[in-house]
Amino acid sequence: MQIIRYPPRSEWAAILQRPMHNLEEVERRVVSIMHDVQQRGDDAVREWTHRFDGIEQTCIRVSEEEFTYAEAQLSDKLKEALQLALHNIEQFHRVQLEEPIRIQTQPGVVCWRRSVPIQRVGLYIPGGTAPLFSTVLMLGVPSKLASVPQRILCTPPQADTSVHPAVLYTARLVGIHDVFKVGGAQAIAAMTFGTATIPKVDKIFGPGNQYVTIAKQLAQRYGVAIDIPAGPSEVAVFADASCRPAFVAADLLSQAEHGTDSQVMLITVSEASINAVLEEIERQMRYLSRAAIAEHALRHSRVVLFASFDDALEFINEYAPEHLILASDDAEVLAERVVNAGSVFVGHYSPEAAGDYASGTNHTLPTNGYARAYSGVSVDSFVKKITFQSLTPEGIRAIGSAVEILAEAEGLDAHRRAITVRTMTVS
Amino acid sequence: MQIIRYPPRSEWAAILQRPMHNLEEVERRVVSIMHDVQQRGDDAVREWTHRFDGIEQTCIRVSEEEFTYAEAQLSDKLKEALQLALHNIEQFHRVQLEEPIRIQTQPGVVCWRRSVPIQRVGLYIPGGTAPLFSTVLMLGVPSKLASVPQRILCTPPQADTSVHPAVLYTARLVGIHDVFKVGGAQAIAAMTFGTATIPKVDKIFGPGNQYVTIAKQLAQRYGVAIDIPAGPSEVAVFADASCRPAFVAADLLSQAEHGTDSQVMLITVSEASINAVLEEIERQMRYLSRAAIAEHALRHSRVVLFASFDDALEFINEYAPEHLILASDDAEVLAERVVNAGSVFVGHYSPEAAGDYASGTNHTLPTNGYARAYSGVSVDSFVKKITFQSLTPEGIRAIGSAVEILAEAEGLDAHRRAITVRTMTVS
Repeated sequence: MQIIRYPPRSEWAAILQRPMHNLEEVERRVVSIMHDVQQRGDDAVREWTHRFDGIEQTCIRVSEEEFTYAEAQLSDKLKEALQLALHNIEQFHRVQLEEPIRIQTQPGVVCWRRSVPIQRVGLYIPGGTAPLFSTVLMLGVPSKLASVPQRILCTPPQADTSVHPAVLYTARLVGIHDVFKVGGAQAIAAMTFGTATIPKVDKIFGPGNQYVTIAKQLAQRYGVAIDIPAGPSEVAVFADASCRPAFVAADLLSQAEHGTDSQVMLITVSEASINAVLEEIERQMRYLSRAAIAEHALRHSRVVLFASFDDALEFINEYAPEHLILASDDAEVLAERVVNAGSVFVGHYSPEAAGDYASGTNHTLPTNGYARAYSGVSVDSFVKKITFQSLTPEGIRAIGSAVEILAEAEGLDAHRRAITVRTMTVS
Repeated sequence: MQIIRYPPRSEWAAILQRPMHNLEEVERRVVSIMHDVQQRGDDAVREWTHRFDGIEQTCIRVSEEEFTYAEAQLSDKLKEALQLALHNIEQFHRVQLEEPIRIQTQPGVVCWRRSVPIQRVGLYIPGGTAPLFSTVLMLGVPSKLASVPQRILCTPPQADTSVHPAVLYTARLVGIHDVFKVGGAQAIAAMTFGTATIPKVDKIFGPGNQYVTIAKQLAQRYGVAIDIPAGPSEVAVFADASCRPAFVAADLLSQAEHGTDSQVMLITVSEASINAVLEEIERQMRYLSRAAIAEHALRHSRVVLFASFDDALEFINEYAPEHLILASDDAEVLAERVVNAGSVFVGHYSPEAAGDYASGTNHTLPTNGYARAYSGVSVDSFVKKITFQSLTPEGIRAIGSAVEILAEAEGLDAHRRAITVRTMTVS
């Protein structure tokens, strides 16, 4: 890790720069996959699956037998762990449901707002090196609480054409029955346009590689919404002299193992803790199965030392990390001053891994600085809030003349007349 | 208006098709404007303003004197009307502020969520045929309630280099002091990258022409969020035999006068009301100052007749209109069954014009079918919701082993160890 001590403000932007990827070549390929699926539907989906995953599929949809078989594969220990995670995630997300708001703004003018579930959502769960069944929980629980009537899930098949049993079991656990064995850009295209087998959806959720990320961006051009723009996962750990170097090192490593492009940053106000943490990283690295990935990720990672808590916090807020760990005895107080972050882990016993799986918060979070303007996934992500207004004749009398004046001043004659035609009948 | 009677379900998609615009040429020009502003800042902004608006600017920022002068220009009548609108919009939006949520999901595991204002937002107010000061209210009020610390406003200068006084007065009314006389793609570019005069922002709001719309889309590639993807404004009016044809006609015309690309649709279950409404449209059209625009918009508009309320409602939900007017004695009941719409106007005395200006709801709404997945602008649009979790040693004991099992099953070794390194010290 590169160590930067007391950087002047003018250098912050450069230190905080995230890597930019040129994805034009990937985009060209994704555009052609999307067009193909739009035109040829399931046939195209099958062909691209064959090309990318080397798999000949007879059936895209996961059958009842496959679900049953998956359940039998899983250990009771894993099922119990999933149950605990499910419980906590449900607890935290249930309170996010919003009651309808109803306000009388003037006599006879009543306005209200109602959360209505998005009618059709598609969840994407990547395959690859790790079967991310935890993401099935993170998208499945809030979509269920939001009462989304149609939920489908796409995930790439494994080499033997099956889906990882933990993914299928977890899908059932959160009430999802329509699972399709399709991955990559072809999965996103299928959910965007619909095929004979895979229904079209209104919003697509979930992480993925560059193909998936770009396909989700392109889906928006066809009127499909997406959860959050995506980038590599990242953590910033703030540590002061009270930190436990072994904990901090373990947290940095757990982010680094995600992928070689993971972003890891240690921000500290304690010179002494730097060496202690770096030594711990070296020691713990020896035991990791994914040490090669972690080492690669750490190579482009940074330690930044500041003279004061104020500077460190300002720097963190400018970075707007996806995950922020506050490894300090003063964590609760510091947490109050965070204005840009996806999710914050407060105090020595709050590792990111807790939130990744089971504390109750959602792990689908804004990366790449998007935490400045975006929230992580929540029940809100699965509803839209429709506003309503109902005016009585008394109501139109109360605001009618103001509306007429405003419409006239904006030069919108017919707007004014839509009021006049009504007030004429009531006064 | 084209009249379609009892269309079979198979034809709905074609009837509901919104016009697609090929904007490649506009996009090419916008890309070059954005790059230019990124590289040359204020100089580029001034040159593009000269080229598009024909104006030589010495000063981009609106001065204190200009604000004072603007206030003197406005009639008391208009100021009072603005005051009433402000009051109602504040009433309805204030209740949208969310209290922090705090939940103990397990003994020693506390999770909470806090709404934090987006730190820097940019509001765009178009110039053109109508000075949209009402949009200043609609973006200014919720951003103020959300306590956004930095709010700027860009709007194109008029021919005499001034800004319309109602826009400036309204900006002051909602507490906005930083107003810049820049319009079009160059304004969006300036807020995306920042210039010496115009600060960079985290999220851009507001309507605009095709240049503005595309510039906002492109801004997202540089990490700037936007309010809602934009399209032409639209209304669907549902009318049954109880409707007042004069009211319905006035509402259709008030949408049609917005622009020649306005989308207007009458959906009815009453054959008799069709002619009555069409006759009223012809009669009222005579009195409109913007009759030419309205007539053009109506030419590509549709009347669709259905045999039942059920069919009509299903059709409306499939359309997902920005504005939906329910011109029926049963409007309250019908409103309950709406699942896709931006804002709904319930009953005979609830014209769209009421919500456009002063009922209290927001008029920045999802168009182009985006109402299927997006909400209109609200206080939510100006905050992000950051989640937090704090675990005690008891908490890590409560969920630690579940997290270890889940991390191991996902093959994420370092995640498991971030727990183990902690539980080792507490058990």
